[in-house]
Amino acid sequence: MKDDKILIGHGSGGKLTSDLIREFFVGNFDNQILNGLTDSAILDIGNATLAYTTDSYVVDPVFFPGGDIGKLSVCGTVNDLSVSGAVPLFISAGFIIEEGFKFSDLRKISESMAAEATKAGVRIVTGDTKVVNRGQCDQIFINTTGIGILNKKLKHISTGSGIRSGDAIIINGYLGDHGIAILGAREHIQFEDDLISDCASLNHLIQAIIQSGIRIRFMRDLTRGGLATVLAEISENKSFGITINENDIPVREIVKGTCEVFGFDPLYLANEGKVLMVVDNRDALKTITEITNHEAGAKPAIIGKVTDDHPGKAVLNSIVGGRRIIDKLSGEMLPRIC
Amino acid sequence: MKDDKILIGHGSGGKLTSDLIREFFVGNFDNQILNGLTDSAILDIGNATLAYTTDSYVVDPVFFPGGDIGKLSVCGTVNDLSVSGAVPLFISAGFIIEEGFKFSDLRKISESMAAEATKAGVRIVTGDTKVVNRGQCDQIFINTTGIGILNKKLKHISTGSGIRSGDAIIINGYLGDHGIAILGAREHIQFEDDLISDCASLNHLIQAIIQSGIRIRFMRDLTRGGLATVLAEISENKSFGITINENDIPVREIVKGTCEVFGFDPLYLANEGKVLMVVDNRDALKTITEITNHEAGAKPAIIGKVTDDHPGKAVLNSIVGGRRIIDKLSGEMLPRIC
Repeated sequence: MKDDKILIGHGSGGKLTSDLIREFFVGNFDNQILNGLTDSAILDIGNATLAYTTDSYVVDPVFFPGGDIGKLSVCGTVNDLSVSGAVPLFISAGFIIEEGFKFSDLRKISESMAAEATKAGVRIVTGDTKVVNRGQCDQIFINTTGIGILNKKLKHISTGSGIRSGDAIIINGYLGDHGIAILGAREHIQFEDDLISDCASLNHLIQAIIQSGIRIRFMRDLTRGGLATVLAEISENKSFGITINENDIPVREIVKGTCEVFGFDPLYLANEGKVLMVVDNRDALKTITEITNHEAGAKPAIIGKVTDDHPGKAVLNSIVGGRRIIDKLSGEMLPRIC
Repeated sequence: MKDDKILIGHGSGGKLTSDLIREFFVGNFDNQILNGLTDSAILDIGNATLAYTTDSYVVDPVFFPGGDIGKLSVCGTVNDLSVSGAVPLFISAGFIIEEGFKFSDLRKISESMAAEATKAGVRIVTGDTKVVNRGQCDQIFINTTGIGILNKKLKHISTGSGIRSGDAIIINGYLGDHGIAILGAREHIQFEDDLISDCASLNHLIQAIIQSGIRIRFMRDLTRGGLATVLAEISENKSFGITINENDIPVREIVKGTCEVFGFDPLYLANEGKVLMVVDNRDALKTITEITNHEAGAKPAIIGKVTDDHPGKAVLNSIVGGRRIIDKLSGEMLPRIC
């Protein structure tokens, strides 16, 4: 790593973040569980298999269309557990609050955490509160760490070890709503159409898909770094490639348009209620049906497939007929998106 | 709560912190596990009973005599699990880093987390890294959340439900070293004698005491708010009282002297390697022997007892012969102590 200081891009969830983690943490904290670098650690304790995950939330602004840092801090951790195949059960909440933060705002945040926890069926069981002087943090940061219970038969979902050529690549709806909603709130943009963050807990949807018997090879939520970074990560150094079709990727017109103005690519935008699923191709249509039946208004789509072509690479067939390799996010488009 | 904004004192670990938690979190997150307000939540999953705890570390300065934020973030969470009677197993690490933070410092912090985890026998199994713009946090904040496994027979240790009149109150060594070491580092004080933080993982010591068959009624680590706040908390609304003798409380001369200069009370100073134990009086001397044998240079002491007198109150017999009621810390002496 050439530079000798932390850059904003080290928090992007993209290439710099994974470089940083490998350089500073993986070697020092060396153990088989961490080294998998999956979103959730998989732990065997007693006769139970648990998924365990942590995330700190620093989103700016704290309140945004479709949610706030409290709701986000519950959804995000619920989703990290859910995509590993686990049923989320317990959440811890660690608050770092800036001196002078308004009680009324803290109350709203606490209430939306509670509401989302109830919706997702998880319990907030332990917490911690630190206060720092004015100017030593920006309003409020929340860490949530979560424990879920995992059926041992689903251990492969978080590693993706079962992905094989021919599998279908599916997403559960429009890309980029969260990223653009945050951008809009931060830049005080008045959108013609209402655009709200897709921030939502996906555990009930994902469990419905698992229960339906669909052969799921892999799942990952599409947060920092977006769809592109996940596709690049899961194909990296693998014997298979991934092809996706731009034409099949659902993106709202307002998101497309805003991306054009700001020079962003929707494939790299953060989502907070979107999941990428790799499923046996024979179950692809059943998966679409399950999603459609489960979440009103979602627009699930089969966006591509796993292939023997170009192993180790994810490739996009663009609308205009070109092909390009999909890389991890480099640099940072929107800091403090979650 | 009269004021409408967060004050520094809300993070003190004393009275304002417990008011804040009750006002904003307990009602909203209402569930039986959280409502116990013990340091660790006790969770039954499968055939296992787990202890679960979270803490965010915001200590200033990041490096101090005897440790750094990395070591502290492991010790603190290991100790929170240990005092509930659990054997700590797994830790998550969530980093919030300010843009511009030095790689060399991050490496040192990561290395001391790894070293302390090895010493304590815990594994850091999952993590998260966020970066915020310069000025939006102060250098680095770390959240660690930990899981330990608990012998079901020891569930009473975290609640203190077994405390009874006649029990002995024991601490494992000198009070206030961490608080004064941090103060010294922050204010660039040159102490005549070397004073270092007592920051240490207590899990092996505590397990040795448990394994020895000592009848432990309760344990709590003496962090924010210090010995006084813990004594006030555990006697509050109870049918027993607590009496302690100032003369029996080990405090180093350098700590006493610095407290006099700054107007602090050692009983309220934060410690990061000290535990209060309430044990059956018949096991008091055995406890002292176990501690002395286990940790070189410690100065364990029986500092008082549980009594039928003054129920609901903790009372200090002072060196000069007076008696005073011990209250929780009000306000904040030293912000960002941990």
